[in-house]
Amino acid sequence: MEECAALYTDLQVFAMVDAYLDEGMLDEAVFSLFVQQLPPGLNFLAASGLEEALRSLETLCFPREALDYLASLQCFSDRLLGYLERFRFSGEVSAVPEGTPVFPQEPLMEVVAPLPEAQLVETLLLHQLHLPTLTASKAARVVLAAGGRPVMDAGLRRMYGLEVGTKMARAAFIAGVQGTSNVLAGHRYGLPLVGGLEHSFVQAHEDELESFRAFSSGFPEMALRVDTYDTLRGVQYVIRLAREQGEGFRVRALQLSSGDLLALSRAARSLLDEAGLQRMKLFANGPLDEASIAWLLEQGAPLDGFYVGPALSVSPDVSALEIAYKLVSYAGKDRIKLSSQRALYPGRKQVFRMDEGGTARRDVLARHDEALPGRPLLRPVMRGGLRLEGACPPLPEIREYAQRELEHLPPELRDLKRSQPAYRVEVSPVLAWTREQLIDAWAASP
Amino acid sequence: MEECAALYTDLQVFAMVDAYLDEGMLDEAVFSLFVQQLPPGLNFLAASGLEEALRSLETLCFPREALDYLASLQCFSDRLLGYLERFRFSGEVSAVPEGTPVFPQEPLMEVVAPLPEAQLVETLLLHQLHLPTLTASKAARVVLAAGGRPVMDAGLRRMYGLEVGTKMARAAFIAGVQGTSNVLAGHRYGLPLVGGLEHSFVQAHEDELESFRAFSSGFPEMALRVDTYDTLRGVQYVIRLAREQGEGFRVRALQLSSGDLLALSRAARSLLDEAGLQRMKLFANGPLDEASIAWLLEQGAPLDGFYVGPALSVSPDVSALEIAYKLVSYAGKDRIKLSSQRALYPGRKQVFRMDEGGTARRDVLARHDEALPGRPLLRPVMRGGLRLEGACPPLPEIREYAQRELEHLPPELRDLKRSQPAYRVEVSPVLAWTREQLIDAWAASP
Repeated sequence: MEECAALYTDLQVFAMVDAYLDEGMLDEAVFSLFVQQLPPGLNFLAASGLEEALRSLETLCFPREALDYLASLQCFSDRLLGYLERFRFSGEVSAVPEGTPVFPQEPLMEVVAPLPEAQLVETLLLHQLHLPTLTASKAARVVLAAGGRPVMDAGLRRMYGLEVGTKMARAAFIAGVQGTSNVLAGHRYGLPLVGGLEHSFVQAHEDELESFRAFSSGFPEMALRVDTYDTLRGVQYVIRLAREQGEGFRVRALQLSSGDLLALSRAARSLLDEAGLQRMKLFANGPLDEASIAWLLEQGAPLDGFYVGPALSVSPDVSALEIAYKLVSYAGKDRIKLSSQRALYPGRKQVFRMDEGGTARRDVLARHDEALPGRPLLRPVMRGGLRLEGACPPLPEIREYAQRELEHLPPELRDLKRSQPAYRVEVSPVLAWTREQLIDAWAASP
Repeated sequence: MEECAALYTDLQVFAMVDAYLDEGMLDEAVFSLFVQQLPPGLNFLAASGLEEALRSLETLCFPREALDYLASLQCFSDRLLGYLERFRFSGEVSAVPEGTPVFPQEPLMEVVAPLPEAQLVETLLLHQLHLPTLTASKAARVVLAAGGRPVMDAGLRRMYGLEVGTKMARAAFIAGVQGTSNVLAGHRYGLPLVGGLEHSFVQAHEDELESFRAFSSGFPEMALRVDTYDTLRGVQYVIRLAREQGEGFRVRALQLSSGDLLALSRAARSLLDEAGLQRMKLFANGPLDEASIAWLLEQGAPLDGFYVGPALSVSPDVSALEIAYKLVSYAGKDRIKLSSQRALYPGRKQVFRMDEGGTARRDVLARHDEALPGRPLLRPVMRGGLRLEGACPPLPEIREYAQRELEHLPPELRDLKRSQPAYRVEVSPVLAWTREQLIDAWAASP
């Protein structure tokens, strides 16, 4: 399937490119990639996915098999097929660094390229940035809820496939998650791997204690899951094993994944403490999200960390972002779109972030050539179809940067109980004026 | 990434397999793959994803790169690495045919294989069946809502990546969707391709009428999108183009994607009819789901079809299924799990569906060797690691079968306004008794 990845786009995109070629519309276009609106469950977005987006721009091409298939549809011109055969992305890209908190209307990325090229990469770029940005945004909330306790990605089972599960692990790591159970993500991105015993292992044994003995002899650093049959009975077996093995006992953590986690974690903690196992950690697993984690901790659940599943990424409260890739300029002329309720601001842009005392206080969305106070967020990352040096720092650096930037958000945005408190994203007077001029011109047209 | 797809599993799975090998636990295991509970937005599930699941079982292996990575983690034995190097799945699989309506607790698939093998394929199988089953189940509702009008998959932009967007297109097609805009899915599965003009094309032109003229000259069979600036003005341009071109005018459909679709479709219809364009179709596009489609049609919106996005698959109301892969037997002995509220029934199973007058009326979940009245839903699809003939019929056949089966669901389950009306899934007395015996034995154990 990867062979023909270049076909992964909407039919009409090839049709539009064919028409552009026919009309000779090869001038420079600017497309802005941004999120139109915050979903109810988020107070901010955390940009992610840039590195793979740039890699896929660098490698995008149409192999023979793809061209043959397009030809077989008998609706495209030879001109289009020839163009695709020679296609390499040659454009310029600016983007906010991965891990940067962003808000609706602020471009995550801008693409400047001949119109057919910029149009062809639409689906590709939306896909590369959507899920990672969604995941980093959601995972940042879960990490906040855990209040410093480790959060681990255990979302693999309920994810939507290899590609999604693996990209999600990377984005969650950027947002502060400590490790993943996804071995492929470990291999691909060098992420720390974590894991804990599953119920099936316990079930396969005749006896729960025996299963703990067998597993912990080889993998003492992985958590034991004690709730296959009865959680507290499971804890008792662990205590029995500890007594049996004495100094040789090396299990360090247990996982609770079902039932009343508050009551069970308290009871388990007591049993362990009474047995002298004060250093044994208790991790929660299961369908946890930021709300349930915050609630458990507020109630004083003695939990030392959390294995989280889909809530780190796609979840019922935020299943998708309203992400868009819109034409804002063609052949040097600014472009707008009007029918939607949501304003589309014309032209290349820059976002200036104003900090006060180390806290981000407001942003200004401006034309790219304005010189305004504040930190400019968009940086050049690709030129002539090639990544610029420094565009993709090593993952640990991205994570560190993201942690710092997330900490600099206003406290009210980091408060999980506040739903979308105001964060000012102003539109620069020049940009606002440009848009109004275009609307007036459109209204006056025949 | 595909190279090391075999690494796409949880760390603990390799640990458990290593421990099984150490203990010599190589006997036959049975795992059931099923959905634990219907999410609120669904009245039934439609099984999907079997063909790729079987293909990936046939091809699963651990290339050198994967083995080297596992070795680098320095926690696994050479015994495990040697086992993985030689690994080929040799087991037996039964499954319900793709397109079959199923209910919670009913196995979509059962795997019978030596314990380490059956354990190793857990994540793989969950991934192959989860999203397609979720999509087919959701898409079937959208198709029902459209009441015979064509539904097209336009979900690519907001999907989570190439793999997901492509598998989703296939599953939606099985559920009755007529085509997709995803060219890769068209290539891969032979799906009919559909598409319509995008806003960017209109924006790139100086003049909307000119953009319609340019696009429709090459692609008259693709719908024109008329709402880039002002929907009814867009419709007027189409009418002007029709007058200008007379007999040569070949545009057959318009797309509306923003604003008040009810009012705009009515106004657009009137304008078109007055202009003698009664045969021009009006399609809706945008963030539609089964509820909004049903509402528009109830209000009498003159819409001829729907381009639907994420609502065909993952959407806020149903972002994931509680899909599980559970051990139910090892070495000839039935297994249970108790801590969760949800019953796990032991042993290999069969589902018998009782029809009355062509309508499915109730199912019985039974042991696999029971002979009960009704249609058995689970069929052997793989033996010795190889697909059986007939396990994967051609896609059009699967779609036809799915349509027939979905039509045979009780009307109350097909009623979108009813939320999870009762459909009886009984547990056979033998199966219920087997489970109780196991619980009693567990309770009596030390």
